[in-house]
Amino acid sequence: MTATAEPRNMSADHASRVLRDHLWMHFATHNGHDEAEAPVIVRGEGAYLFDARGKRYLDGLAGLFAVQVGHGRRELAEAAARQLTELSYFPLWGYAHPAALELAERLANSAPGDLNRVFFTVSGGESVETAWKLARQYFKLTGKPGKHKVISRSMAYHGTSLGALSITGIPGAKAPFEPLVPSTQRVPNTNFYRATEHTDDYAAYGRWAADRIEEAILFEGPETVAAVFLEPVQNTGGCFVPPPGYFQRVREICDRHDVLLVSDEVICAFGRLGTAFGAQRFGYQPDMITTAKGLTSGYAPLGAVLASDRLMEPFRRSGTPFMHGSTYGGHPMSCAVALANLDIIDGEGLYEHVRANEQHFRENLERLTDLPIVGEVRGAGYFWAVELVKDKTTKERFSAEESTRVLRNYLSKELFANGLYCRADDRAEPVIQFSPPLICDRTHFAEIEQILRETLTGAWKLL
Amino acid sequence: MTATAEPRNMSADHASRVLRDHLWMHFATHNGHDEAEAPVIVRGEGAYLFDARGKRYLDGLAGLFAVQVGHGRRELAEAAARQLTELSYFPLWGYAHPAALELAERLANSAPGDLNRVFFTVSGGESVETAWKLARQYFKLTGKPGKHKVISRSMAYHGTSLGALSITGIPGAKAPFEPLVPSTQRVPNTNFYRATEHTDDYAAYGRWAADRIEEAILFEGPETVAAVFLEPVQNTGGCFVPPPGYFQRVREICDRHDVLLVSDEVICAFGRLGTAFGAQRFGYQPDMITTAKGLTSGYAPLGAVLASDRLMEPFRRSGTPFMHGSTYGGHPMSCAVALANLDIIDGEGLYEHVRANEQHFRENLERLTDLPIVGEVRGAGYFWAVELVKDKTTKERFSAEESTRVLRNYLSKELFANGLYCRADDRAEPVIQFSPPLICDRTHFAEIEQILRETLTGAWKLL
Repeated sequence: MTATAEPRNMSADHASRVLRDHLWMHFATHNGHDEAEAPVIVRGEGAYLFDARGKRYLDGLAGLFAVQVGHGRRELAEAAARQLTELSYFPLWGYAHPAALELAERLANSAPGDLNRVFFTVSGGESVETAWKLARQYFKLTGKPGKHKVISRSMAYHGTSLGALSITGIPGAKAPFEPLVPSTQRVPNTNFYRATEHTDDYAAYGRWAADRIEEAILFEGPETVAAVFLEPVQNTGGCFVPPPGYFQRVREICDRHDVLLVSDEVICAFGRLGTAFGAQRFGYQPDMITTAKGLTSGYAPLGAVLASDRLMEPFRRSGTPFMHGSTYGGHPMSCAVALANLDIIDGEGLYEHVRANEQHFRENLERLTDLPIVGEVRGAGYFWAVELVKDKTTKERFSAEESTRVLRNYLSKELFANGLYCRADDRAEPVIQFSPPLICDRTHFAEIEQILRETLTGAWKLL
Repeated sequence: MTATAEPRNMSADHASRVLRDHLWMHFATHNGHDEAEAPVIVRGEGAYLFDARGKRYLDGLAGLFAVQVGHGRRELAEAAARQLTELSYFPLWGYAHPAALELAERLANSAPGDLNRVFFTVSGGESVETAWKLARQYFKLTGKPGKHKVISRSMAYHGTSLGALSITGIPGAKAPFEPLVPSTQRVPNTNFYRATEHTDDYAAYGRWAADRIEEAILFEGPETVAAVFLEPVQNTGGCFVPPPGYFQRVREICDRHDVLLVSDEVICAFGRLGTAFGAQRFGYQPDMITTAKGLTSGYAPLGAVLASDRLMEPFRRSGTPFMHGSTYGGHPMSCAVALANLDIIDGEGLYEHVRANEQHFRENLERLTDLPIVGEVRGAGYFWAVELVKDKTTKERFSAEESTRVLRNYLSKELFANGLYCRADDRAEPVIQFSPPLICDRTHFAEIEQILRETLTGAWKLL
């Protein structure tokens, strides 16, 4: 027994035993052999990951849409250690600490419009929970207690705690856990590739999609609807970008019915789209922004809800506390890491870097449309999806058997075996998703294209 | 702009402005002046905290029931920095990393009975959400899909995300956010001091309280009830310990109706009661343990659910994944900090230290029963509450006006002004709560007694 935790070596056999007998992985099959063969990732450096056998992988997903500045940044490790030595832990329950104060001011200054109020959380899911709770108490304090419902989009992911899961639009992620919080409703996302309305007019399609939000508000009764939760670019289904004018029309609809517009930017903030916040990229003004991941580049758990002055007003006037908080929301170490992370982003001009290079990323992926299996490439910034189809003319989908055999059993494993960590996801349409560290450049895009080309060609042969 | 985040100095005026304009604190009043005067905590060392003016406070609450090994431990800062340099971030979504593997094995080996499965989360609240979701999917997989409800105790706190909040038994924490997840029910806690039944027979009172759980199960219908969530010692209301035989009877009731017993040990694990887990202190076998806080001594956000082999079984057999996970559950850095924290706890024998010294802590607090305002002292391990009364013979409570004037406006602030950070809470009964770092010894208990005596004497004069 030593007093410090040296990194221990664990043999491959030992790791397999622990995977089989003890560690319950997230969203994973545990049938006694699959999990025992799960990859063990031991090291990260820049845009690359290394497994226990020393094999290298390009991190095409930034861990999980998080590691903006790349892996292994000593500045962030040092910021964490410094804060842990100075003030290891203290809650924000009526108290403050310097790192939270500095970070709150910095976020408020960079947020669009009057989103001046910063409530720290520990994660994106907790940010979503917080935003919904804030909307509910806000309306109860302002004489509209019936406004508690939420509108969100089909297949959108907003988290897994039961409140956030109720807002999540993925039926398969919800069914095992019903009944959930009552009164959330789904509207269409902006999947123009699979549009059935206004298929020849993108702007008209956008108006139609936005108007479905108004329809849902009217179906429920505006006096019962608190908020609409939307991602700037929807992740699940594969990087659904907003049609021109979509968010502007949603803003008008929300204003008309006194419904709060929550921009869920857990993925899209901090440079994923080349701007501090996704709302800035698309020029709309939300009432709240929920965020996490990129705020610390994933080095430490932290999230935040940025709320407008209007939302704080009734709490100030009545002296009523927002009855919410958590042990780890705004952890001193996490806030210190976030400050150091924002320093790197600013110092290295990573937002500008993304804007200057996203076109190259797009071009590399679009070259793959010469393959028969690639239906569409879509996205923005450093956030792209490649949709796979059986027939690119008819957009025919894969059968269930093909999805299992080719997409799940072959493609996911083969991409990884070929040195590319990314996500092959068929919860909605079958897509391969990319969200690499923001430090990536043309050499990484070329590497992604090359591995994709090789693997997709192999997949096509199996069909 | 520098690439590393040096701790910045913020003037007191500047901090006040940020508190007023930007930082939304948790569970706090924001009326434009209260929050601008919130204490700013800048440093911790051992059992002490220091504010921005250099004033010292004894940390009577271990931050928030978390900092078991005390503040400022360099070993933990170094473990965090080492892991962040090696592998900054990676999710457990079908992958593993060495720190999670090692920690899972270590937790499984120390847990009571066959709680061999370890699902990592980011916080106590997420552990509670996870346990409920696991219970629901488990029963859906085993042919009892109607079993989804939860029984919990009056005034018990189980978290603030909407699922955990539904299980929480504090009406004032829930009302602003209704409607919640349907179908949770409350039963009495074990507040024997305020008992109205079996007031002269502690064991009979315990049987009565346990039987109220069976009554609730029968009222709802056993085929609809998934789990009972209980803390080993209930925090809110002030350290309600279980009467003798209580948990054994609850276990029998749960077995009779196929209801899972979840021991919510977010506070009570990792030495708070002098044992690794609270269930071990009271000799009962839960189906799941939810935990967080002390696992890392609060240095990094991490929680875990320990589940029995039985709960994994249907997932293994069917190859169905538990459809749950989170970005930061089992963060590599948090797991590395937990390992180093458990090394310190083991190396310094802190569980034994608590068992050897808890009687001294109790004696120091019980000396205060000579004061007319002290009604009862109760607790176990390093987890104690002092209940305040207006008349110790009749147990008369304070009026609402007295509660505001004496407890909230005077006592809380005066204890802090006198150098003691603890919690004066009157959500249930008016209590002062103590949960100091496990490194504390007789000198700290004497300091607590002295400050309490002085402050409570002052409070009594105001009545």
